[in-house]
Amino acid sequence: MIAPAKEILVIGLGLIGSSIAKAAKNKGLIVNGYDKNESSTKEALNKNIIDASFETLDEINDKELAKKVDIVIVAVSPKATQRVISEIKNLWNTAITITDTSSVKNHLNFDSPTNIIFSHPIAGSDKSGISGVDDQLFINKKTIICNPYQVDESHLSKLRNFWEHALSMRVEEMSVKDHDLMFAMTSHLPHLISYALIDSIRLSEKDPSDNAGGGLKEFIRLSGSNPEMWKDIFELNEKNIIKSLASFQLSINNLLELITKIKEIPATFSHSDLLKSELDEIKKYKEDTF
Amino acid sequence: MIAPAKEILVIGLGLIGSSIAKAAKNKGLIVNGYDKNESSTKEALNKNIIDASFETLDEINDKELAKKVDIVIVAVSPKATQRVISEIKNLWNTAITITDTSSVKNHLNFDSPTNIIFSHPIAGSDKSGISGVDDQLFINKKTIICNPYQVDESHLSKLRNFWEHALSMRVEEMSVKDHDLMFAMTSHLPHLISYALIDSIRLSEKDPSDNAGGGLKEFIRLSGSNPEMWKDIFELNEKNIIKSLASFQLSINNLLELITKIKEIPATFSHSDLLKSELDEIKKYKEDTF
Repeated sequence: MIAPAKEILVIGLGLIGSSIAKAAKNKGLIVNGYDKNESSTKEALNKNIIDASFETLDEINDKELAKKVDIVIVAVSPKATQRVISEIKNLWNTAITITDTSSVKNHLNFDSPTNIIFSHPIAGSDKSGISGVDDQLFINKKTIICNPYQVDESHLSKLRNFWEHALSMRVEEMSVKDHDLMFAMTSHLPHLISYALIDSIRLSEKDPSDNAGGGLKEFIRLSGSNPEMWKDIFELNEKNIIKSLASFQLSINNLLELITKIKEIPATFSHSDLLKSELDEIKKYKEDTF
Repeated sequence: MIAPAKEILVIGLGLIGSSIAKAAKNKGLIVNGYDKNESSTKEALNKNIIDASFETLDEINDKELAKKVDIVIVAVSPKATQRVISEIKNLWNTAITITDTSSVKNHLNFDSPTNIIFSHPIAGSDKSGISGVDDQLFINKKTIICNPYQVDESHLSKLRNFWEHALSMRVEEMSVKDHDLMFAMTSHLPHLISYALIDSIRLSEKDPSDNAGGGLKEFIRLSGSNPEMWKDIFELNEKNIIKSLASFQLSINNLLELITKIKEIPATFSHSDLLKSELDEIKKYKEDTF
């Protein structure tokens, strides 16, 4: 049995990083923080989101840190994740467990470190930045863990324990390949489609918000989320998104054939069976989020 | 100045009809109700959603009704709307104002009646049927009114007053053509897309609900809504939906060119400007709905 993490360092104090920091601190962990934006670090200290701060990545990139910090969580944009983890190379192959929060993984490429495991805590918000900090953001949500370097059990247990007990999340392990295809389908493609839909309505010079029912409002919400992060995601997960888009187009074409009477529309034109099992969870999500 | 409606009759006591009935009754109107399903009519009486009931459409189809009822609201599925209004022909060209709640209008075709105006109160829910009755469903939402028969001002004012004051809604008037194209884009196409997306994920044999973030959950919700109504809508508004789908496909292709680097991805890959102005309303919607 591995001792649970007692002290962590969160690099990047945006929505995700600050929310992780605050939730962990609430559970009694000692939380260090660093953000390249000095004012975010100060805000985190002032708002009691972190206990202590670092001023530079250089200061963090020190083997001695392994004597006190158990886990380093790099919570920056998908592209910056590769760079930041590379810049703390002195922490590689130490007792510290290094992880991230990127929603794409295939671009992350390190030289067989013994202590880097990827994490993707699945939660989102309309908000971004430390001003959106929310210590409830992750409760009962899921974290995907990818362990492409076959890091040993002690790191894996420590990290799993952190997400499960400090953040109250469920943990599932999958390969980088499965992760990136799964999220292309269930997250990246829905964002792309939302963006395209709102785009096409705006190009028609109708105001999409003016007559939006609830469904469209959710498309507007998705199409308006953190632009920097989504630009990264679309670039980095291009192949999987295109693959998912291709099968979406097949389904669209199939529906077109139904609507234009080339085929007969089935009596049950609905995924309501799926909905039933989901409804409670959806409501829960809404209550969590809004 | 026209006297406000004091007594109404709601034909069809599903989610929409029963919610209109209850909201109007709360405002002190006398509400009559009828549903082809006898148990719904009984439930409406028992739950105090209506004051009195009719047993058949034949019984309703009586000129004498004009002596007491000010507005008849036909709240049945889009296809049934044509049939039901045709079956109460003795109420045409009387002092009663006849309206409907269908989300498609172009198929509604009557022989120049002097008292039929179309309405589309915009609200929805995961629920359907009288068990989902919600007297708050329409508050602060919008009703679109279409007046293709140029019905005179007395009917128009009465109806407008009803939606605004008995139901606490905003009213906007537009042509049937504009209405059906607008809703193809902002409502019917989003439903079609949601259905296709969930379809394509299911066909890939992934369980879409298992790793669904909030965005996907909304797609699941949309793809699972009232099958009977949506089957009607897709059939009846086919041309506008295909037109909207074509411009959506253009936007998708444009995004594909961006992602595959044929064009450069803009720094701001987001409709966040639109989102900002919408956010408060979206939150309000969520609070209303869940």
